[in-house]
Amino acid sequence: MTDNHLIAFTRGVPPVESFPIKRLEECAQAVLERDGNRLLQYGKAAGYEPLRERLTAQYSVSKGQIIVGSGSLQLLDTLVRVSLQPQDYVFLEQPTYDRVLTIFRRSGTQLEGINLHNGLLDMTQLEEKLRSGLRPRYFYLIPDFQNPSGAVMPLAARRKLIELSKTYGFYLIEDGPYRDLRYHGQALPSLFELAPERVIYMSSYSKLISPGLRVGFMLLPPELVESVRKFAEDTYINASYLNQAIAYEFIQRGWLAENLEQLKALYRPRLDTLLQTLEAEFFGRADWVKPAGGFFVGLNLGAGYCVPNPSALQAAGLALSDSRGFFIQGGEQFIRLPFCALTPEQLQEGVRRLSRAIFS
Amino acid sequence: MTDNHLIAFTRGVPPVESFPIKRLEECAQAVLERDGNRLLQYGKAAGYEPLRERLTAQYSVSKGQIIVGSGSLQLLDTLVRVSLQPQDYVFLEQPTYDRVLTIFRRSGTQLEGINLHNGLLDMTQLEEKLRSGLRPRYFYLIPDFQNPSGAVMPLAARRKLIELSKTYGFYLIEDGPYRDLRYHGQALPSLFELAPERVIYMSSYSKLISPGLRVGFMLLPPELVESVRKFAEDTYINASYLNQAIAYEFIQRGWLAENLEQLKALYRPRLDTLLQTLEAEFFGRADWVKPAGGFFVGLNLGAGYCVPNPSALQAAGLALSDSRGFFIQGGEQFIRLPFCALTPEQLQEGVRRLSRAIFS
Repeated sequence: MTDNHLIAFTRGVPPVESFPIKRLEECAQAVLERDGNRLLQYGKAAGYEPLRERLTAQYSVSKGQIIVGSGSLQLLDTLVRVSLQPQDYVFLEQPTYDRVLTIFRRSGTQLEGINLHNGLLDMTQLEEKLRSGLRPRYFYLIPDFQNPSGAVMPLAARRKLIELSKTYGFYLIEDGPYRDLRYHGQALPSLFELAPERVIYMSSYSKLISPGLRVGFMLLPPELVESVRKFAEDTYINASYLNQAIAYEFIQRGWLAENLEQLKALYRPRLDTLLQTLEAEFFGRADWVKPAGGFFVGLNLGAGYCVPNPSALQAAGLALSDSRGFFIQGGEQFIRLPFCALTPEQLQEGVRRLSRAIFS
Repeated sequence: MTDNHLIAFTRGVPPVESFPIKRLEECAQAVLERDGNRLLQYGKAAGYEPLRERLTAQYSVSKGQIIVGSGSLQLLDTLVRVSLQPQDYVFLEQPTYDRVLTIFRRSGTQLEGINLHNGLLDMTQLEEKLRSGLRPRYFYLIPDFQNPSGAVMPLAARRKLIELSKTYGFYLIEDGPYRDLRYHGQALPSLFELAPERVIYMSSYSKLISPGLRVGFMLLPPELVESVRKFAEDTYINASYLNQAIAYEFIQRGWLAENLEQLKALYRPRLDTLLQTLEAEFFGRADWVKPAGGFFVGLNLGAGYCVPNPSALQAAGLALSDSRGFFIQGGEQFIRLPFCALTPEQLQEGVRRLSRAIFS
């Protein structure tokens, strides 16, 4: 192969060809025509009422518990600002989503990573920390198609986590943006479905419709929602209702369900190709979870192997995220491979380049 | 008059009849068709490139100095988070915009109010504070049609402020959302035009197109821009490009200029009616600036008069903002009257009700 174009395994972005532009145009026009006065005025910080009502029904919560923002990260930042003090503890899977780690880090709270071993949370480590007296306020998790590992948490682990959250009095923050992107097999119940009273659920339409809409949401327990809502209002008044109304209209017309089927059909062969190529190129030299959905496969290189340095990557025609961003400490032998925005051919070629850069 | 409908002198919102819904619909469609792939993908936190380029030309700054966000308040919050420590001092006009006061307050910085007397900044008080050794990091000001007083800062005061900012090494944060809404007379040069190197300029399209677009911007000195941009990215990745592109398209088509003329024609008689009615009802019993633009007239009640309490206001069929929100301390004798979203008839009736509630 002589194509030397850079193959970028960097951010977890959807491919532009997946964006339902025409349909979003129709939605924008319809909602401005129907509800322009409301969309173009200032609004309540909790978000566009019809979308919140829809989420109320979908998640069986009261409308007052839902806040819609400009992406779910912004809402997490607000939750952190109103509810955490520097002396508080937060637990996270290790590795975890780098942007979330940044948000918790700058709050000055004490962060404790609970290791994922081959996609399984180290429950012994978790229980030891809890028994030693550490009392987290929150445990942030991505149980479905975890970023960056691709792992899905087994049902027994979900139940165990909920039991621990009740025993030790902490909230689980469940981040679910990939949950609906399952390409094989059956979904497990979410933490939120298992124990809504212990879980702060957050998700967004970035991976299901398009990131540029910037529409995410959070379901909060009654004792936290008013302070988050007020702080959001004091920070940005309200997130754009136009975007929220477009997402709402898209869902109402049944186009989200159709879009999900198209996304799955587009991403399934990409995941399958990636896993096959990894098997051929990395077997015995790295461990990885074999996910059945989501955006990522995470590689743990075997002993003695290192992630190529930036100049070696450049020479190989590759770009990777800095894996240390996914870890509180460490990460030197981890590689995140986002696969949705690359064609099967690019994925094959990219994994081969990576294999050559590491092993030759 | 038997109409007992509530007359709300509360938030500074534009009337819904001013929203150019049809034109914004056309803009939304045009930009999604032309640039959908870019608008629907993640983007850089600094904002939609064509809008930033336009602002570059408009303000004669380098493109790198511009950041576009989901309203200008969000950008101010970000600036505060990256650049202020609790021991830092910030100066503000007193009274000032209540939401900005909230943002500075929760940063834990030391706030010093410089009084506005009949719309004029108390330069003696300012110089005394500076000579006594107080060194503010920022002085936040709204020189044109100030919120909540309506004041316009005279040219000599603008020059003096810039001189002081150079002598004592602080930045002026100039908030300019009302600057283009002048209904009589000629504009003075902005602080930014007089001394771009000393001024952080912020503004938005909330009052010029519509609040619901949530598009605001900030022009930052080179030494601050990278930290603000990075912090914004780490908080919300990017503000919606769709909204920024709609604003851009609206401006490019010449519709902003037309819209401004329509807004002025709509608001001018409202302001004129308010000022005439105040003259008839409050002469000798309150002081107020007579603004030639903007959204607000601020009343300072004379000695011995008080703002009616909430139940008296309700009985009178009125709603007011809590004026203490505009002051670091005090505010009990101040009333902000936003006039853009009320008809001349409502303004007359509202001022008469207020007069009766206070004086009878």
